[in-house]
Amino acid sequence: MSTLNALFEARSVAIVGASDNPQKLGGRPIAYMKRLGYKGDIIPVNPRSKIVQGIPAIASLADLENPVDLAVLATPEAMVESIVKAGLEKGIKNFVVFASGYAEIDEQGLFKQRQLEALFENTDARLLGPNCLGFINTTTQLIASFTTAMEVNPLKLGHLSFAGHSGALGAYWLDKTIRADIGVSKWISSGNESNVDIADIVKYLANDPDTQVISLYIEAIRDPERLEKALALAKQRNKPVVAMKGGKTAAGSRATQAHTASNTLNSIDYQAIFNRTGVIEVDSLSEMIKQCQFGLSSLTLKGKRVGVISISGGAGVMLSDQLTANGLNVNDFSDTLRKVVRPLLSSHSTTQNPVDLTAAMVAQPTMLGDVATAMTQSTEYDAIVIFMGLMESIADNITSSLLALEKSANCPVFLIWMGGQVECVQTLSKANIITFDDIPELVSLLSRSKPS
Amino acid sequence: MSTLNALFEARSVAIVGASDNPQKLGGRPIAYMKRLGYKGDIIPVNPRSKIVQGIPAIASLADLENPVDLAVLATPEAMVESIVKAGLEKGIKNFVVFASGYAEIDEQGLFKQRQLEALFENTDARLLGPNCLGFINTTTQLIASFTTAMEVNPLKLGHLSFAGHSGALGAYWLDKTIRADIGVSKWISSGNESNVDIADIVKYLANDPDTQVISLYIEAIRDPERLEKALALAKQRNKPVVAMKGGKTAAGSRATQAHTASNTLNSIDYQAIFNRTGVIEVDSLSEMIKQCQFGLSSLTLKGKRVGVISISGGAGVMLSDQLTANGLNVNDFSDTLRKVVRPLLSSHSTTQNPVDLTAAMVAQPTMLGDVATAMTQSTEYDAIVIFMGLMESIADNITSSLLALEKSANCPVFLIWMGGQVECVQTLSKANIITFDDIPELVSLLSRSKPS
Repeated sequence: MSTLNALFEARSVAIVGASDNPQKLGGRPIAYMKRLGYKGDIIPVNPRSKIVQGIPAIASLADLENPVDLAVLATPEAMVESIVKAGLEKGIKNFVVFASGYAEIDEQGLFKQRQLEALFENTDARLLGPNCLGFINTTTQLIASFTTAMEVNPLKLGHLSFAGHSGALGAYWLDKTIRADIGVSKWISSGNESNVDIADIVKYLANDPDTQVISLYIEAIRDPERLEKALALAKQRNKPVVAMKGGKTAAGSRATQAHTASNTLNSIDYQAIFNRTGVIEVDSLSEMIKQCQFGLSSLTLKGKRVGVISISGGAGVMLSDQLTANGLNVNDFSDTLRKVVRPLLSSHSTTQNPVDLTAAMVAQPTMLGDVATAMTQSTEYDAIVIFMGLMESIADNITSSLLALEKSANCPVFLIWMGGQVECVQTLSKANIITFDDIPELVSLLSRSKPS
Repeated sequence: MSTLNALFEARSVAIVGASDNPQKLGGRPIAYMKRLGYKGDIIPVNPRSKIVQGIPAIASLADLENPVDLAVLATPEAMVESIVKAGLEKGIKNFVVFASGYAEIDEQGLFKQRQLEALFENTDARLLGPNCLGFINTTTQLIASFTTAMEVNPLKLGHLSFAGHSGALGAYWLDKTIRADIGVSKWISSGNESNVDIADIVKYLANDPDTQVISLYIEAIRDPERLEKALALAKQRNKPVVAMKGGKTAAGSRATQAHTASNTLNSIDYQAIFNRTGVIEVDSLSEMIKQCQFGLSSLTLKGKRVGVISISGGAGVMLSDQLTANGLNVNDFSDTLRKVVRPLLSSHSTTQNPVDLTAAMVAQPTMLGDVATAMTQSTEYDAIVIFMGLMESIADNITSSLLALEKSANCPVFLIWMGGQVECVQTLSKANIITFDDIPELVSLLSRSKPS
């Protein structure tokens, strides 16, 4: 079979079941592409309209003069087979099918899916779906998806890509990247994977020059060897892969069967595959977004030594406990470093890791930056974790100290800012300082990122 | 020694080191009490002012006509000993000392602390601190604290109480309860615990009729037997206790020593004490707040059977996996329940637990409420977990469905609303539906609340 470049980088797209209503399944892709300026041709297909959303329409794929690169089917399941047939006859090589009602439902649905798949036998044509939300390519603004996640804000162009079995989780992923101002390259919902599976997509993304970090939600592993090969390729290309795995228990597997017809309670040892290929497994979308941000920063944890600076003694205690319990090392200062840091702190602070700045930092605006710089320059730490809480009165000062620190630091700097101001957190986040609301998620990120 | 009622329910308070500036250590308690209407007498003590914040001041405690119930010392450490002496001579029985510079610093500090403690030998007087943020009693609006957490919004009067070794974590706790609109009764920062320790405070709160749930941050356990007795009393009074424990590792213990002079790496098996007394241990403040909200709802988990309803198939999968992996049971429907639920769902949904409502719920506004009601009325579940994502267009409808459900349900209902609207989440939170941003925290709450 051909590579997926022609599918995900199509230069002309027919939307079958095109609608004038930008809220409808067949209306959204057109409305998005018009708004965002798709760099290709859009051909609406609708037997009852000559013009759809201002664009001349055709009645059926059979009326195409030349085959388009891609046909997106936004029609009910009952119409899919005949439309795909017409498209294949016209020479179209790539299809996206949104409709559900296939193998995820029952035996009859499975039969219908097998019939659909049979149309692709002995062809090099590709089918994304059925039962999927389609895909997005932000480079060309090709929005072959009806996700609602982009209704308010557009995606930012960038280098994080997503592929997953769940369209809805994918939509929440989109919403979270938009809120966190993270740039996205490709976003792909694979659904029931008749003909394009996660392994194919990972291989495509590993080779995609616009993708730097790959984010996955995996239910079925249909071909473990092919998946492992694709993941190994991503590793070889130095592209971090962050994955959530669904369907690990009997109850979860019952759910994946009904969701994307995925039998996940099989004998595949996915964790062994992840371990061999360096995939970072996470348990939630929130965690995934942070881990991807770290991957995009191109920074890595070179060792396990973590320096902790806290405005709260109690938070320093909790961080020390949880980092240590998760395989990190909150090593104390060398005597040399102790001598450097001592004069930077108030006389009521003990000079040690974790550093407790105490409320004295409020009166001494350079304390945070000075202590952190001394710690990074010492080369005694592989990461610096800073804990702040509230501090509205000196929030701008904290922000500028950390921006300066990020420029000079020779290791990653992470920030937990409990009750911090949204604008400051956003500014820091854009400057490669990943910011957390509370301790456990930061600890989890470091634990999963540490060298073995 | 006397009980702590006289301390925490003082009807007259002298603020030593009183300041006209409401931003200063000695100004904040007065400003807060004036603003919130403390139901008692405030006597500022300042040798250089006749009037402080509009209230007549005295030059020293020696000038008091009658002993006040409580003296709050907002002075540097160097002045503390002589002021406490004068207060004791005047017959004052209760003191709060904010100053740090004691056992948490070094041997010299420890010596000073022992000298301070010696003043209380053979008396029934009590000292909260030193090195603490004081306390708050919302019933009488006695604010014997300089925490900044209440600068913008006041505390709501309610039935959750806090005690902890860390003033700053306590302040973030206050900020979180204010944001979550949770009512608070007592808030107590114990610091170095010269004379009043967590065990004393837990005993007081267990007996306090205004306290329904007790929230703790514990570093030192100075007397395990007394603490266990106090926790057992809380259990006997049916008051849930939720605790974070700091100083569990060598690095954490190094930090507690510098923080509140707490030697935490001793042989005390705190987990055994927690287990015997039913204390729920949590790892973060975010988790603590949710767990306390559940305690305040007076609902409990009577068994381990969890019904899951999700708008996203993938989220249903993740929930099933994580609940199962954490000791809960995502048991499937009985045949009876299956027959009841089948006609409520779209034909493209499989009738099973977890229920995948699919996007069909958008067009059918009663679906969520109908399915959830059928599941609660079946008595096949001990808790219902609902997962929603985004859904801005029908957010009000979801909110009213859940409010109705909460009234009729015979088991607790939890909601994860990823990217949900703040106002809706707040409305639901006030109606005893605890709402989460993502899956892991909800799973953790259920896992820690399940019967053994």
